[in-house]
Amino acid sequence: MRNETAFLFDLDGTLVDSVYQHVLAWKQALDADGIELSVWRIHRRIGMSGGLFMNQLLRETHEAHESIAPERIARLQKLHADAYRRHADQVRPLPGARALLDTLTAAQVPWAIATSGRLATASVNLQALGVDPSVSTVVTRDEVRHAKPDPDLFIAAALRLNVPIERCLVVGDSVWDMLAAQRCRALGIGLQSGGYGTEELQRAGALRVYEDPADLLDHLDEVCARD
Amino acid sequence: MRNETAFLFDLDGTLVDSVYQHVLAWKQALDADGIELSVWRIHRRIGMSGGLFMNQLLRETHEAHESIAPERIARLQKLHADAYRRHADQVRPLPGARALLDTLTAAQVPWAIATSGRLATASVNLQALGVDPSVSTVVTRDEVRHAKPDPDLFIAAALRLNVPIERCLVVGDSVWDMLAAQRCRALGIGLQSGGYGTEELQRAGALRVYEDPADLLDHLDEVCARD
Repeated sequence: MRNETAFLFDLDGTLVDSVYQHVLAWKQALDADGIELSVWRIHRRIGMSGGLFMNQLLRETHEAHESIAPERIARLQKLHADAYRRHADQVRPLPGARALLDTLTAAQVPWAIATSGRLATASVNLQALGVDPSVSTVVTRDEVRHAKPDPDLFIAAALRLNVPIERCLVVGDSVWDMLAAQRCRALGIGLQSGGYGTEELQRAGALRVYEDPADLLDHLDEVCARD
Repeated sequence: MRNETAFLFDLDGTLVDSVYQHVLAWKQALDADGIELSVWRIHRRIGMSGGLFMNQLLRETHEAHESIAPERIARLQKLHADAYRRHADQVRPLPGARALLDTLTAAQVPWAIATSGRLATASVNLQALGVDPSVSTVVTRDEVRHAKPDPDLFIAAALRLNVPIERCLVVGDSVWDMLAAQRCRALGIGLQSGGYGTEELQRAGALRVYEDPADLLDHLDEVCARD
């Protein structure tokens, strides 16, 4: 592979098998705050900014037509982080995730991780994945103004890698990753490993959809120049 | 509504918001038995026969090319049922589920519940839904030879209602429900509330896809004759 492309990875559902634990942790947090919401609606919002996520969810429950109070968002985020940490021992890297990162590193292809999660929850996942944020490039929600589907996280990651965003591939499991990729003129690669269907990822602009990191690794020459 | 149609309902993800709890309960059961499997692959098998489910999952992990031993299936099923019961206090009826069943009852439209689950786990859900199997027609996995995507459950339910299967609407959240519906010449109605995307349900043969029971109730005249 020539050094023509950089990879910007989402974390939850893309490199780490953690989406369903996040979904049920949000369910527990919302229940504890008296917000009744079907679990599938939570699943479809995972991966977007936490604040946006809650505003959209509450709009769907018709509880609020306006934005919700920042204190309530902060309380829900704390409830979610606490519940997620109780599931944390179940969280594993997805098949091929470690091998994919190692392959890119060996081929000197720059890569970074850009997650809508905050460092408090992301650190659990990075540890499971064996990625040290003091060595590898990791951009979290704490570092940007707007999270996905705004493209700020991916733009910040490309800047840190010193690669133009137009040369980046955004790898993610949610439609929010694909929308953010298009909005900053990167190319999106969808993975099914977060539970979205192929068609939804394609409709959100995915150039190509693979099952999981192992499947992407097997087909890397479809999306990235070879040596 | 004239009494021209009968409704055969799946339970998990269709009337009761329990799919994600089932998914993580299976994850716990498989982990405890030393089987590593990504959570999204478990999600996509939910709703099919438990034995078939495990054979397909193990085939995907390349652990087995043949069927797995019945004792192992039984052990995994017990681990799953135990784990599911620990999540049971979270399980709620889906929005509109109770109202939909009450509307059909009031209109004298026959309905039944046909679930791939065994009575041991289904009873938790029926209780949450307020359905008494000694009053309403409920067919569980225990009563048929093959579960979904084989059509036996729906055929048994139609027989119990004394309605020809060709006059039945099968309402379900998974592609297995839609395939089973087509295999017995019923019509399938898909619900998104189990986490499958609309396109997947349509490709599996759904006549129409709604968000959840409340959305189906709002559009009942699209699929069922009026008075």
